[in-house]
Amino acid sequence: MFDTVDSFLSSLNSLPTAETKFQEAAQARQNQLTKPHGALGRLEDIAIWLAGWQGRECPKLDEISAFVFAGNHGVVEEGVSPFPSSVTEQMVQNFEQGGAAINALTSVFGHQLSVIPLSLDEPTKNIAASPAMTMEETLEAINAGAQAVEQCTADLVYFGEMGIGNTTIASTLAAATCGGCGAEWAGPGTGLSSKGISLKAEVIDRALALHNLKTDKVNREGLQNPFTIMRLVGGREHAAIMGAVVAARLKHLPVLLDGFVVTAAVAPLSLLKVNAFDHCLAAHCSAEPGHQRLLDFLWLDPLLSLDMRLGEGTGAALAVEIIKGAVTTHSQMATFAEASISNRD
Amino acid sequence: MFDTVDSFLSSLNSLPTAETKFQEAAQARQNQLTKPHGALGRLEDIAIWLAGWQGRECPKLDEISAFVFAGNHGVVEEGVSPFPSSVTEQMVQNFEQGGAAINALTSVFGHQLSVIPLSLDEPTKNIAASPAMTMEETLEAINAGAQAVEQCTADLVYFGEMGIGNTTIASTLAAATCGGCGAEWAGPGTGLSSKGISLKAEVIDRALALHNLKTDKVNREGLQNPFTIMRLVGGREHAAIMGAVVAARLKHLPVLLDGFVVTAAVAPLSLLKVNAFDHCLAAHCSAEPGHQRLLDFLWLDPLLSLDMRLGEGTGAALAVEIIKGAVTTHSQMATFAEASISNRD
Repeated sequence: MFDTVDSFLSSLNSLPTAETKFQEAAQARQNQLTKPHGALGRLEDIAIWLAGWQGRECPKLDEISAFVFAGNHGVVEEGVSPFPSSVTEQMVQNFEQGGAAINALTSVFGHQLSVIPLSLDEPTKNIAASPAMTMEETLEAINAGAQAVEQCTADLVYFGEMGIGNTTIASTLAAATCGGCGAEWAGPGTGLSSKGISLKAEVIDRALALHNLKTDKVNREGLQNPFTIMRLVGGREHAAIMGAVVAARLKHLPVLLDGFVVTAAVAPLSLLKVNAFDHCLAAHCSAEPGHQRLLDFLWLDPLLSLDMRLGEGTGAALAVEIIKGAVTTHSQMATFAEASISNRD
Repeated sequence: MFDTVDSFLSSLNSLPTAETKFQEAAQARQNQLTKPHGALGRLEDIAIWLAGWQGRECPKLDEISAFVFAGNHGVVEEGVSPFPSSVTEQMVQNFEQGGAAINALTSVFGHQLSVIPLSLDEPTKNIAASPAMTMEETLEAINAGAQAVEQCTADLVYFGEMGIGNTTIASTLAAATCGGCGAEWAGPGTGLSSKGISLKAEVIDRALALHNLKTDKVNREGLQNPFTIMRLVGGREHAAIMGAVVAARLKHLPVLLDGFVVTAAVAPLSLLKVNAFDHCLAAHCSAEPGHQRLLDFLWLDPLLSLDMRLGEGTGAALAVEIIKGAVTTHSQMATFAEASISNRD
């Protein structure tokens, strides 16, 4: 929990790093396993990354937790979504009854799922007309995410989101962080027409102008800090995910980032701390057109690219299986010596 | 089982196709699930593809079988691998003792694994000096694969391979199918130096010239049939995989193709039948440089791209988890009506 805005922001100056001695031990182990060096590609990198963050030569994945945060958005009054806001609450009920995509995936793969609705009956303000949240609301939402992570005992965690209108918020957060205008970041979301996408771009531009968040891609002076960007143009689920990712870092807990909304929610952290995502892997690149651009900006290389654009944490849920493959090969394969196999010439 | 070469080749003229009525039913179901249309991307395509091949609106994955075929190759005497041929047998023992990467993956994901060594003490002949196999040997190896599949009761199947020297064979099969010279298809395999890759390319060119398999990329007349190509420059594990993929098609059994060696093993089938792989999905694109080119030639779009280059079926083992996600969301998600959720405007 962050008691004040300052305590949240100053935590970014004392983020822990991965433990290199466990990374080195994991690398040494990989070199002895019965396969040509490097033949497991990214699985090897993942095992070594996880070893550094979990602080053990053989990382484990006994418990995997997914948290889905839901919020509502005043910007929907601009007509930026083909679905009504009431669908956010309806989908939360669907999560609770086990009927959504993330339920099917967490169930088949054995992940724990928690759904955390954030004041759904109090949408944030319309970002094209006013700040989205007060300082108190923003901090409260950040702490909702931080608290979920602090109480969690998982070996790996990922976050999902649900909120009609939240790709408009995500695109605005991305533009405020990386620069660029609405048209460069607006996409179809749940399925806007090209006319709808133009409207969405125009709403994003109005919000950026109103809050003086138009950034110069070259001169990065005068940018706002992550908290202020979130307060002005964010959403409750975005703030919760930002808080959760920082809280995970503080307890050395590795994170899989889901799609466009999750990546945009944490993107402003990069303005204060370039290595803010060292404890994160990008699970996938979604079909939302801004996502690849955002991943490139943050130097994140996604594990999957399956044209998904659903959110809820679904891309991360699938990518966990790749991590599971990495952990299992790393810990269960025999070494050349154990298997009495001739190593290369 | 194919009694004669002719019965194998003529089976390619009567390959069954997917059942469109089940594909249509699956598409209709997807449109009712609680998500924006198309938001699960390739997962939706996979569920519909599987519905067509399994002949059921909701495909199932109760049983998944992996078959790893192993063979030895006379071409190793040309110095095309940094590992000695004895490693093939040693790795088969490693598979049997549960110490290889494919053991770890099939174990954690719950797949059945069978390892089928093919006359390891009788390597095929050196393709740069003579035909690899006799007609009888080729047919026997094809039938080893076909028989494994015929007896199998799985809902989805994939094939892996082990054989020191078998990427040289795979590259030669790819060149004989798609055209191009050795340098366009030779890669590091288990870890050749650039000097080793040049030697490998030269050996491939000698084999193509010896067997008159240099193909003209534009004029595709006069190409050999898949059986003859396999007999001249193939290997036992490659032939087994070719036979297994055809046998799977004959029983409407969907297949996940693993990496470069598996894809090259079936590539010659495309010369006789353009839609020979309709029942197959490409699991991944490996780091072996010829693989992407080969996938492009065969119009296959891989599910994963994780810089893996191990073979054994490891890429396919991981990709099964994506299929599992597709099947589970397709069958377990609630419809809009069931969940009382407002559909889009």
